[in-house]
Amino acid sequence: MDGQGGATAEIDRGSETASLLTRYLAVRAATGALTAPLSPEDCQIQSMPDASPAKWHLAHTAWFFETFLLGPALSGYAPFDLAFGYLFNSYYEAAGPRHARPQRGLLTRPSLDEVMAYRAHVDDGMARLIGSGAADEALIVIGLHHEQQHQELILMDILHAFSCNPLEPAYRSEGEVAPAQIKAAVWVGFDGGLRQIGHDGSGFAFDNEGPRHKVWLEPFELRSDLVTEGEFAEFIADSGYKRSELWLSDGWAAVQRHCWTAPLYWRDDDGRWTVFTLRGRRPLDAGAPVRHLSFYEADAYARWAGARLPTEAEWEVAAESSDEDPSQMSGYAWQWTASAYLPYPGFRPAGGAVGEYNGKFMSGQMVLRGGAAETPEGHTRLTYRNFFPPEARWMFSGLRLSRDA
Amino acid sequence: MDGQGGATAEIDRGSETASLLTRYLAVRAATGALTAPLSPEDCQIQSMPDASPAKWHLAHTAWFFETFLLGPALSGYAPFDLAFGYLFNSYYEAAGPRHARPQRGLLTRPSLDEVMAYRAHVDDGMARLIGSGAADEALIVIGLHHEQQHQELILMDILHAFSCNPLEPAYRSEGEVAPAQIKAAVWVGFDGGLRQIGHDGSGFAFDNEGPRHKVWLEPFELRSDLVTEGEFAEFIADSGYKRSELWLSDGWAAVQRHCWTAPLYWRDDDGRWTVFTLRGRRPLDAGAPVRHLSFYEADAYARWAGARLPTEAEWEVAAESSDEDPSQMSGYAWQWTASAYLPYPGFRPAGGAVGEYNGKFMSGQMVLRGGAAETPEGHTRLTYRNFFPPEARWMFSGLRLSRDA
Amino acid sequence: MDGQGGATAEIDRGSETASLLTRYLAVRAATGALTAPLSPEDCQIQSMPDASPAKWHLAHTAWFFETFLLGPALSGYAPFDLAFGYLFNSYYEAAGPRHARPQRGLLTRPSLDEVMAYRAHVDDGMARLIGSGAADEALIVIGLHHEQQHQELILMDILHAFSCNPLEPAYRSEGEVAPAQIKAAVWVGFDGGLRQIGHDGSGFAFDNEGPRHKVWLEPFELRSDLVTEGEFAEFIADSGYKRSELWLSDGWAAVQRHCWTAPLYWRDDDGRWTVFTLRGRRPLDAGAPVRHLSFYEADAYARWAGARLPTEAEWEVAAESSDEDPSQMSGYAWQWTASAYLPYPGFRPAGGAVGEYNGKFMSGQMVLRGGAAETPEGHTRLTYRNFFPPEARWMFSGLRLSRDA
Amino acid sequence: MDGQGGATAEIDRGSETASLLTRYLAVRAATGALTAPLSPEDCQIQSMPDASPAKWHLAHTAWFFETFLLGPALSGYAPFDLAFGYLFNSYYEAAGPRHARPQRGLLTRPSLDEVMAYRAHVDDGMARLIGSGAADEALIVIGLHHEQQHQELILMDILHAFSCNPLEPAYRSEGEVAPAQIKAAVWVGFDGGLRQIGHDGSGFAFDNEGPRHKVWLEPFELRSDLVTEGEFAEFIADSGYKRSELWLSDGWAAVQRHCWTAPLYWRDDDGRWTVFTLRGRRPLDAGAPVRHLSFYEADAYARWAGARLPTEAEWEVAAESSDEDPSQMSGYAWQWTASAYLPYPGFRPAGGAVGEYNGKFMSGQMVLRGGAAETPEGHTRLTYRNFFPPEARWMFSGLRLSRDA
Repeated sequence: MDGQGGATAEIDRGSETASLLTRYLAVRAATGALTAPLSPEDCQIQSMPDASPAKWHLAHTAWFFETFLLGPALSGYAPFDLAFGYLFNSYYEAAGPRHARPQRGLLTRPSLDEVMAYRAHVDDGMARLIGSGAADEALIVIGLHHEQQHQELILMDILHAFSCNPLEPAYRSEGEVAPAQIKAAVWVGFDGGLRQIGHDGSGFAFDNEGPRHKVWLEPFELRSDLVTEGEFAEFIADSGYKRSELWLSDGWAAVQRHCWTAPLYWRDDDGRWTVFTLRGRRPLDAGAPVRHLSFYEADAYARWAGARLPTEAEWEVAAESSDEDPSQMSGYAWQWTASAYLPYPGFRPAGGAVGEYNGKFMSGQMVLRGGAAETPEGHTRLTYRNFFPPEARWMFSGLRLSRDA
Repeated sequence: MDGQGGATAEIDRGSETASLLTRYLAVRAATGALTAPLSPEDCQIQSMPDASPAKWHLAHTAWFFETFLLGPALSGYAPFDLAFGYLFNSYYEAAGPRHARPQRGLLTRPSLDEVMAYRAHVDDGMARLIGSGAADEALIVIGLHHEQQHQELILMDILHAFSCNPLEPAYRSEGEVAPAQIKAAVWVGFDGGLRQIGHDGSGFAFDNEGPRHKVWLEPFELRSDLVTEGEFAEFIADSGYKRSELWLSDGWAAVQRHCWTAPLYWRDDDGRWTVFTLRGRRPLDAGAPVRHLSFYEADAYARWAGARLPTEAEWEVAAESSDEDPSQMSGYAWQWTASAYLPYPGFRPAGGAVGEYNGKFMSGQMVLRGGAAETPEGHTRLTYRNFFPPEARWMFSGLRLSRDA
Repeated sequence: MDGQGGATAEIDRGSETASLLTRYLAVRAATGALTAPLSPEDCQIQSMPDASPAKWHLAHTAWFFETFLLGPALSGYAPFDLAFGYLFNSYYEAAGPRHARPQRGLLTRPSLDEVMAYRAHVDDGMARLIGSGAADEALIVIGLHHEQQHQELILMDILHAFSCNPLEPAYRSEGEVAPAQIKAAVWVGFDGGLRQIGHDGSGFAFDNEGPRHKVWLEPFELRSDLVTEGEFAEFIADSGYKRSELWLSDGWAAVQRHCWTAPLYWRDDDGRWTVFTLRGRRPLDAGAPVRHLSFYEADAYARWAGARLPTEAEWEVAAESSDEDPSQMSGYAWQWTASAYLPYPGFRPAGGAVGEYNGKFMSGQMVLRGGAAETPEGHTRLTYRNFFPPEARWMFSGLRLSRDA
Repeated sequence: MDGQGGATAEIDRGSETASLLTRYLAVRAATGALTAPLSPEDCQIQSMPDASPAKWHLAHTAWFFETFLLGPALSGYAPFDLAFGYLFNSYYEAAGPRHARPQRGLLTRPSLDEVMAYRAHVDDGMARLIGSGAADEALIVIGLHHEQQHQELILMDILHAFSCNPLEPAYRSEGEVAPAQIKAAVWVGFDGGLRQIGHDGSGFAFDNEGPRHKVWLEPFELRSDLVTEGEFAEFIADSGYKRSELWLSDGWAAVQRHCWTAPLYWRDDDGRWTVFTLRGRRPLDAGAPVRHLSFYEADAYARWAGARLPTEAEWEVAAESSDEDPSQMSGYAWQWTASAYLPYPGFRPAGGAVGEYNGKFMSGQMVLRGGAAETPEGHTRLTYRNFFPPEARWMFSGLRLSRDA
């Protein structure tokens, strides 16, 4: 995240030395730093219903603190604007009705300046609340993690928005750098047996990461590195997008419906692949992990390669293994797993309105593990369960191969 | 238009006294004045595929002069940005491919500032071209009328955009004022017979207004005033939107599909109608002409009232009649006619790329006559043929009743 | 129609010699003869929302007589099945709610046998009603013309249904034969002036054909013959479907949306055009009039040929002209005109529920004149106004060129 | 199945005593018996894209034997009609292109009679092939199970088709009878621990049922009986369809989109629920298991009841338990589980074209366990994995509650 303005925010690991307020301000500042390169117009638009305007992200993350912390707990707090409760609620049914998601891009008012003033107003209130000692620290920490999720969404969404502009603007001139491929990828073996996965409750985690529970695993092998752009180009060259036998039925239908012939943001420029990124369009980088794949493409690639996607249990067990450097697992791209996003045994949603946070999406989505170069530092965990519909491609999603031992 | 910044622009009537350059600059300045109240964000968005961002209108009207005047005719003219030819072409197939219309709202770059610089660049070039004496004056006049059309579109589109915002911002604090209803509306009779309509070629007109040609008319009567909001509220109160027998079949289908229960921008606030306008939301004004009707609603109202819509020939003959004050005919709202938008006998499209201007839309649309409070001064003519699909409602469209004598 | 079972039915011209009952029975028998080649399964299906099952046509035409004649006027008439009033109403709002049009193909019950029994039951009732002398003859004649319209729809709809079957069944082994092109087509000139068109009220006509009224025409020329398949193939070979400048804007959008490259039912079989017809698939017949064109295709062809479509006034004046053999005008294909389907001056819909018959469709459609080989004998008139949406192609629609003199 | 014509077909259990030919003929006869009550028109239609015409099912199941058995293995076999390979392939990419699924209802030819002749032709061939001793028995058994799946689909599809007809025909006058609720439902406890599920390879199973593998289960409880119509009516009465907090996010969206207010085929007749079944419409039967639920409705009901859906592992372990009568588990309705339809660890698709059978659908669907009253005898297994998209409701789907111990 250094490349994104110098603001780092380790919400949890730094908790022993940094005060809650310091951590709060650091996360909030990081959000501001992310949007600094964007004009009011850039922050305005919504390039597809799945995405949101950067301005909306800025306002919604303030709304979270105002709605769940300041309103209930800060004596005498005056809401910045009563209408914002309606405008900037995302999907919390318990927090009342809300502006239709696909119309977020139509809110030219409040202006970006007003939204920044809203954020400052909320920050003032939060400073007072935290200073009062009466703050619900756990809820604040949730709010900060929530804000970090939106930091990554801001980057996903602006990349998509810029990709819709024939001028193909670059969000920044430098930034995420793919890990150097210093040695060939190898298969790493893991024992099976009765193992445990899931968060054990120590330190912060989202409700969907727990409870920790037993799973039985058969022995398996995992690839030491992510699949690269160069490898994926071989799949394409081998007619990967034209061979129905490599695809799940829904995936094949998606290929036809969307006329997919390559990952999102790839373009065939006179026979050479180029890739649009936050730094603009660049030639294919054969050694860089491929990103912006749907689950279907990841799955088809794995089948083509004679392998499969790992389950999330396999992924987590491998990541926890002492034989494996965790940074190898997270790193540069979210990794599709073979696991549907479902509740763990014994799962109970968190109480209150934030209980809507994760549980109600446990249908129709697949789990991704790891983390991307754009994921805020301190926001990844080995137990972290990211999830998206199998057709989505605008997040920083790649894959790691697995196979039975 | 005085209320919109003081800039008036009489392209044709002033032609004897004002130089071409003066007229050019006045029209261009009027466009700038119209967008002065708008923020960069307001100018960015496209609230529906039929509408365009204000920024796009600003750029497209400059593109027209650059593409059809400066490029071909000004020696040594350097285009502001070659990419703009693609970005800001509207529908001129002859001028090459173009950015997809529904995606106009995604162009956050160029910024509003850059677009204003583009306009200044084009204005510089046009000043040189006009100064050189080599300019095609007729084509410049077309460009100025084209720009005036977009002035009205800017207002239509921003009204729609603001209507999508729950905050319902006002574009301006004053402006269009409905004509006072100082006396009751009456039926005015007109003789039938062999008459002529259409533009005779003296002075400017769009190609679709000619040629002047003979039509046979039966005697008819026209209402002296437009149908008012109060009258339309009676139609609603009499279950007008629920009685299929009052509607054309396509109109009835539109009522069902869109769940129409009132004109666009009307809202039932606890039993009282309010109307959203460029000045914000206001209570129903019983004496003001009703606007923002589809053709289907205008037609259904007329049937309910035991009358019908006038044909465009009837409208034009009445407007030319010495018994009738032309200002009564144009005035406050465009008026739906019973006439489909089709070529006049002997119609020939203008030559060159601007020949796409009108002819290719002669299908599926209905003619409106008159002009609205928002129509730039000097842009209305008794022969002017405005046209929109029968389902459209976001323009300033009302109706005047007609009946057989 | 002889080829379709030998039953001819001249409702009006035969009225002096044939009794009303004879005429009634002849029309009804012709409908039965048309469906004789069809299996119960053929009669069941609806291949698109615009089409209806043959079984539905059979039942609906009986419903017309039951609803508007027998129920109100035949003492003691027992409806065949009360549910049929709901199932077989087409669009008569005044006759109550009805089964959704796109779901007509789902009515496997009543069976074809039951529908034929329904028809026999209605025929019995009608024989009694006519025998009683109390029948409303004018309404019966409307019913018979209504039934003849459905006879042509049955053929249009079954052709479309069969075209969806890869087996491409033939409806019949012989039938409509294109007129021999014995001599080259020529331009025939017509004087302009004040003329009259529309039905004068003598003999049967639909309400939309009147009143007869004056129109002013400029001199024009009409082609003596319809555009042929061979001529249309030249348009295609000259990239007619790829040149936007030949098309109306809506037409060009339709070409893109539907990927049109030829008239409906044409197929490129290894470089040679074939055409699917009621007699099965056959090679292109260069001398036969082209059919199954949309209005947009007819209009684009005319523009390509340096001509235009005639207005319906021009068509009717020409057809009435003593210099022109009327059979030349009607003949083999309906002919798109340049006229939108709108009410004539002074038009009043017929009273009662049958008044919904034509007036409410006067929006969004274009007029076709003439008649097709499949049109029942006695059903064409020089004043007859057929109408379809400009995108429709499944009727037997061709074109005749016109131009200014 | 006795109620459906007396033909029973135990493909596997009877395999020791009945010859392969006997078993083949019994299954085939059962299909014929199922369609006996249907007219050619009933067999023709496709009431939605998910469903298929009964005639298509009849032909497709014959196509399976012709394509995978007779063509490759019966010397001198003459295909009945070469076009059928295209018409009646369902989704086997390896078997070549095929008629578009949503257009299956448009194939009025071949007629039902011809399809029955096709079946007889295939049966002749199969008798010869089996008699030759050269038949691939395993593949024939797959074909018979495939045919049994289509037997149930025929009933699902005809029920849906009849439900679209306002006449609401009954498929039969007697048939499936809901199990008597002789005693109150109770919670039955099951131990957790390391258990095994999945098919062990002895006897027939589909590829997706294996391999048998270890799973870790926590202790759980299962309801002894299925949720009843009476219980589900209480959920509705308690505003179950109006409380977003009871629903998964996708489920709540489905409720809004489809305006669901009750299970499929339920209707509120003046305040009393009625249910459309294969025996026609009947009043709600409070003691009968509720059916025709989507996964979302089953999940929402369970949440409302303070319970949850069982995983498929829980369901299978319970069904295998000696404490539980298996017939209690299968019985009357398929039961939604909380498990997404995914491959078991170590899953390998069957080889050849039939390998497309199950694996490629392992995405976007949920598993149902048990079996319905309409499921052919001998077609249910404790390891059987049925699967449907979470929004589907036209199968015989109900639910059984589960909870943590």
